Amino acid sequence: MFKRVEEAHERIRGFVRRTPVMTSSTLDSITGSICFLKCESFQKTGSFKFRGALNAVSVLSEEQKRKGVITHSSGNHAQALALAARLFGIKAVVVMPQNAPPAKMVAARNYGAEIVVCGSHPADRERAVLPLIKDFGYTLIHPFNDLSIIAGAGTAAYELVDEVGNLDYVFCPVGGGGLLSGTAIAARGLLSSSVKIIGVEPENADDACRSLKAGKIIPVESPNTIADGLRTSLGHKTFQIIKERVDKIVAVSEQEIVNAMRFLWERMKLVVEPSGAVSLAGVLSKQLDLTNRVGVIVSGGNIDLTDLFSALEKSLKIS
Amino acid sequence: MFKRVEEAHERIRGFVRRTPVMTSSTLDSITGSICFLKCESFQKTGSFKFRGALNAVSVLSEEQKRKGVITHSSGNHAQALALAARLFGIKAVVVMPQNAPPAKMVAARNYGAEIVVCGSHPADRERAVLPLIKDFGYTLIHPFNDLSIIAGAGTAAYELVDEVGNLDYVFCPVGGGGLLSGTAIAARGLLSSSVKIIGVEPENADDACRSLKAGKIIPVESPNTIADGLRTSLGHKTFQIIKERVDKIVAVSEQEIVNAMRFLWERMKLVVEPSGAVSLAGVLSKQLDLTNRVGVIVSGGNIDLTDLFSALEKSLKIS
Repeated sequence: MFKRVEEAHERIRGFVRRTPVMTSSTLDSITGSICFLKCESFQKTGSFKFRGALNAVSVLSEEQKRKGVITHSSGNHAQALALAARLFGIKAVVVMPQNAPPAKMVAARNYGAEIVVCGSHPADRERAVLPLIKDFGYTLIHPFNDLSIIAGAGTAAYELVDEVGNLDYVFCPVGGGGLLSGTAIAARGLLSSSVKIIGVEPENADDACRSLKAGKIIPVESPNTIADGLRTSLGHKTFQIIKERVDKIVAVSEQEIVNAMRFLWERMKLVVEPSGAVSLAGVLSKQLDLTNRVGVIVSGGNIDLTDLFSALEKSLKIS
Repeated sequence: MFKRVEEAHERIRGFVRRTPVMTSSTLDSITGSICFLKCESFQKTGSFKFRGALNAVSVLSEEQKRKGVITHSSGNHAQALALAARLFGIKAVVVMPQNAPPAKMVAARNYGAEIVVCGSHPADRERAVLPLIKDFGYTLIHPFNDLSIIAGAGTAAYELVDEVGNLDYVFCPVGGGGLLSGTAIAARGLLSSSVKIIGVEPENADDACRSLKAGKIIPVESPNTIADGLRTSLGHKTFQIIKERVDKIVAVSEQEIVNAMRFLWERMKLVVEPSGAVSLAGVLSKQLDLTNRVGVIVSGGNIDLTDLFSALEKSLKIS
């Protein structure tokens, strides 16, 4: 599997942004370690998802490209696939749950995707996708349970290690598990065997914790978390990879997610969405006794700022 | 003067953060140019001010260091001087207007400075500073009208040009004029003589426009702008440098400042304060017909996020 990450890296490196690695002396003194944040919030389309989508579209046959691609996504994968498809001049259809953030729907449409709205239960997504595939011959680009997507996602950790060298821990958010799978494959391929790979998920969507404990996938029903990108449950491919390559899953509360997000905004001047702050929430939760060098995948920055800026504009008018 | 910037660069480079230069293909297509944003929001203490403060403290005599330093500042220079003084183990006193953002007062105190609160009129600041200098022998480190401060501020543009090479325009915010002076000196020292140096200020604090037009300093009285770092007027040193080295000052409305800030947050995922977004507001205002390569100094990211995060936490509790 590591070879697939290396190949993905070579394939997409000219088209993805090599995102900056940020550090903070305040963070280091709080954690007693040296933290390196790989800021995928600066990736094209605002999240790491562009890496997997571009890799997956790149390897399609000419016939598949001619017919177009389809996916279901709460948002970031949708934008990512829409832009990847546009770069190849192919059609993209995105099935989105009705409770997806409006800003993400608009963004996917702006990248040229056709949007189909479905119910908010995870099962509704696949129910909407299947007849469209049957009728139009679209290729499904699954948001996480797909080896090309996983390999593409792993290129973020690949770049991180390439830039900063040895790491003793790598923290990564886990929703469907594509990013965590790719991160674990890349980190285990590049780093010493003593590296600890840590997945972090919201307590309110802790299917990865429970699935690993049970030894089988236990999906969460209607997860209620501010981290909207992590409401999905593991797929069978990501479950297998995570079971073999991840040392521990830690769960964080909603308040811990907001606190981590606030640290990123206020102290590090980074606009990061709740799902993107979850890995740092895991670092700050002190569930592990950290030392030495810690890699942190900050996965995305797509958050609806309409309310914030409406309030700002209102304050201009009354001042 | 350029030699002073080069010396400042050598003196402080090991202690300041070499801030990233960010780009955006969306911004490039909106402006019809290639924009390079030097993000001093990521500088230590959250703004470019740390460069000047560190340079100014570095060159003090042992006697001056023993007695300590004092300044007046609406905020960012205060934090910067507090940290610079702490690094040298010397005392820092900061006189702040009572209407300075509370987050900035707290930050300066957290960096170890002693805070003295004064009235909100620009003249109140100097009235509070003078007796303290007389009684305690502090050295005044003026926030902008000081050649060491100006040279230090110029190291941001120095690094920008060092990293990206030729630029046809450099946009820089102007309040007291320290950053614009340093930027103009650095850019004119490194770039071809055809480079255009553009200062940008709020329409509601347009003393630089009016002063250059009148040929003498015309301070603004009680400027009312969201860009709190740019409420100060030019000093006699910065006025002289700007007169000789800056091609044009453009003024932007409060709405244009908010729009630029929103672009930085939403599209570029950068937390930038209003004053820091003013240079981009100048680029986006289309008052100049831009082509080719444009450098933009994004000066700081210190903004009080208390209201935003209070609202977020409240939404957690009711969800």
